[in-house]
Amino acid sequence: MTESTLDRPPTRKGVLEAAHKIAQILPPTPLLPFDVGGQTVYAKAECLQPMGAFKIRGGWHRLTALSQDERTRGVVAVSSGNHAQGVAWAARELGVAATIVMPSDAPAIKLNRTRELGADVVTYDRMTENREAIAKGLAAEKGAAYVHAFADPWVIEGQGSAGIEIMAQLEAIGRPAPTRIVACCGGGGLSAGLALACPDAEVVPVEPEGWDDVCRSIESGEIQSVGPNPPRTACDALQTLQTSPINFAVLKARCSYGLRVSEDEVRQAQRFAFEHLRLVLEPGGAVALAAVLTGKARVDGTTAILLSGGNVDPAQFRDTVLAGI
Amino acid sequence: MTESTLDRPPTRKGVLEAAHKIAQILPPTPLLPFDVGGQTVYAKAECLQPMGAFKIRGGWHRLTALSQDERTRGVVAVSSGNHAQGVAWAARELGVAATIVMPSDAPAIKLNRTRELGADVVTYDRMTENREAIAKGLAAEKGAAYVHAFADPWVIEGQGSAGIEIMAQLEAIGRPAPTRIVACCGGGGLSAGLALACPDAEVVPVEPEGWDDVCRSIESGEIQSVGPNPPRTACDALQTLQTSPINFAVLKARCSYGLRVSEDEVRQAQRFAFEHLRLVLEPGGAVALAAVLTGKARVDGTTAILLSGGNVDPAQFRDTVLAGI
Repeated sequence: MTESTLDRPPTRKGVLEAAHKIAQILPPTPLLPFDVGGQTVYAKAECLQPMGAFKIRGGWHRLTALSQDERTRGVVAVSSGNHAQGVAWAARELGVAATIVMPSDAPAIKLNRTRELGADVVTYDRMTENREAIAKGLAAEKGAAYVHAFADPWVIEGQGSAGIEIMAQLEAIGRPAPTRIVACCGGGGLSAGLALACPDAEVVPVEPEGWDDVCRSIESGEIQSVGPNPPRTACDALQTLQTSPINFAVLKARCSYGLRVSEDEVRQAQRFAFEHLRLVLEPGGAVALAAVLTGKARVDGTTAILLSGGNVDPAQFRDTVLAGI
Repeated sequence: MTESTLDRPPTRKGVLEAAHKIAQILPPTPLLPFDVGGQTVYAKAECLQPMGAFKIRGGWHRLTALSQDERTRGVVAVSSGNHAQGVAWAARELGVAATIVMPSDAPAIKLNRTRELGADVVTYDRMTENREAIAKGLAAEKGAAYVHAFADPWVIEGQGSAGIEIMAQLEAIGRPAPTRIVACCGGGGLSAGLALACPDAEVVPVEPEGWDDVCRSIESGEIQSVGPNPPRTACDALQTLQTSPINFAVLKARCSYGLRVSEDEVRQAQRFAFEHLRLVLEPGGAVALAAVLTGKARVDGTTAILLSGGNVDPAQFRDTVLAGI
C-alpha cells in the first residue's frame, strides 16, 4: 500500500467504502423514531458508539487507510475530545501509536477517556498556544500521520457512513430515503459526509449561537470565521473557528442554509433525550435535536437527525440539564 | 379467531412466534458490548423501546393474540408503570381500549406516560386496596380481557423475544449463543421468557435485597413470598410479592440460583450506564448491570444482560444517581 493521500476530494464511493469497513467492526447504531408535532422524526443515536460519538467512523476509515509504514510511525491528532477518542479507539484496535493534542480545559471525562484508550495526551492552553503548530511539530518529529478532525477526505467519508446506515435502516422499516438530515456542525466533517452519503437529502447543519461560522459561510458563499469574542458555549465539541475548503466545497453545493440554537434550547433538548429517548447527550450532541424540537428545522417528509455524542460530565449534566426540576 | 386462552404453558415455539411478530413492528434494540474486568459483556438496551422498557414485547404478543371480539371489548391490566405502558402502547397501535389499574404512588412519569398513550388510568392505594380485585371487577364489568403483568403465557413468550434478538445479534458479530443471561426479576415473566428463548443459557434472575422471593423460591424449590415488611426500594418495577406457578415451572427447571443487589449497588449501576453506555436506566432496569459490575454474577463465557427499562423521574435520578459528585 502506498502512502495515503489527502490530496483528493471526498466522494460518495469513499463513503460507501467507509460504510462497508465500519459495518465489519461496529453494528449500526439504532435509528429511534419519535414524534415532533405529529410527524415522526428518526434519531440516529451515535452517542451509543463504543467511545460515545460518531467520530469513531472517521477515525476508523482514516487509520485503516494508512499504509503499513505509516501505521508504524503512528498518528497525531488535535481534538477537544470526541475526535481524540475516535482516533485513539481506532489506533488501539489497529496497534498504532496515537498522540492527541487536547485543550487543558477539555471536559475531564474526555481527557481521561482518551488516556484510557491508550493514547498519549499532550495538553495546551486554548488561549495562548497554537494547537495546530504543536500537533504539526509532534507529527514532524515522529514522522507520524496528522489526522485532522474534519479537513480530511477520509474523515469526511467516514462520518458520512452514518448516512448510509440511516438509509438502510429506513428501508428496513419500509420508509424511503431521508428527504432531510439535520446534523450538528463544528468543522463540517459530518455534514459534508452526510451530504455525500445521501445525495437526495437536504442537509441542514446546526451550530450554537455565536459559533455560526458555517451558517454565515453558506449565507455569504465564502468561508467565514467565528468572531473575535465568541460567547461561552457548553457545546465544547462544536467550538471550531472555521470550516476548511475541502468541507466547504461540499457544503456550499448542497446546503442552502444552516440553523443556530441557543444554550437554553440545547439544555432543553438534552432533557428531552433523557426523558423521552432514555439517552445521555452532551451539549454538542443535542443541537440537531434542539433544532427540530424548537421548530427551527422543518420535519416534513422523512427527516433524520444525528444525536452525535454523549460524552458529558455527570455533575455538569446534573447542574444544568436536570437543575430546577 | 377463537378466544385466546391462558390455559397453556408458554413454549419456545411461542417465543419464536412472538419474536417474528415483534420484528415486524419494532427494530431490535441494540446489543452494546462493554468490558467487565477484561471480559466483554453484552447489554441488551431495552430501555430504548418506544415506551422505554421490554414490557412492550409481552403487551404486543398478548394483544395481537386476542380475537376480534375480544379486541372490541378492550383490555384491563394492573401495573406500577412499565407493563401499563407496554399494554397501552400495543392497545393504541391496535385500536383497542385499555384500562390500567396503577398504584397512586407510582412514579408520575409512568402515570402520565400511560395516560399519554391513550389508556384510561384507574389509581388505587397500595396500602389499603386490592388491585387484583379492582382490575378483575373492571374486566368483568366491561367484558374485557385481563392482561396479567407476568402470569400469562403470551406475556412470558413476548418478553422472551428479547432472547431471540440477542442470539441473532451475537451471531451477526460472529459470537456463539449466550452461555449466561442475567436479567431483572419482578414476577419472573422476563426470566422465564429468556429461559425458553435460550435453551442452552444459564438464566440468572436478579432482585433487589428484601424483594428476593424468586431467589428464595428457587432455593427452596417452592414459591415463596416477599416478607411482611419489605424494605423500601427504588426499584418500583420489581416490587412483586410473589411469582406465579406458570412462571415458576420454567424458573425451577432452568435457574439454579438468583442474585440480590443493594440499593447502593443499583445506583452505582445507573451511574455506570449514564457515563459509560450513555443510557438512562430506571433503578429496576439496572439490577442486572449491578449484578455483573459487583462481581455477584459471573461473566465468563458469553454473558448477556438485560437493561430492562429507563422510565425514571429526572429529579429522582439527579438526587440519587448523580448526587454528591
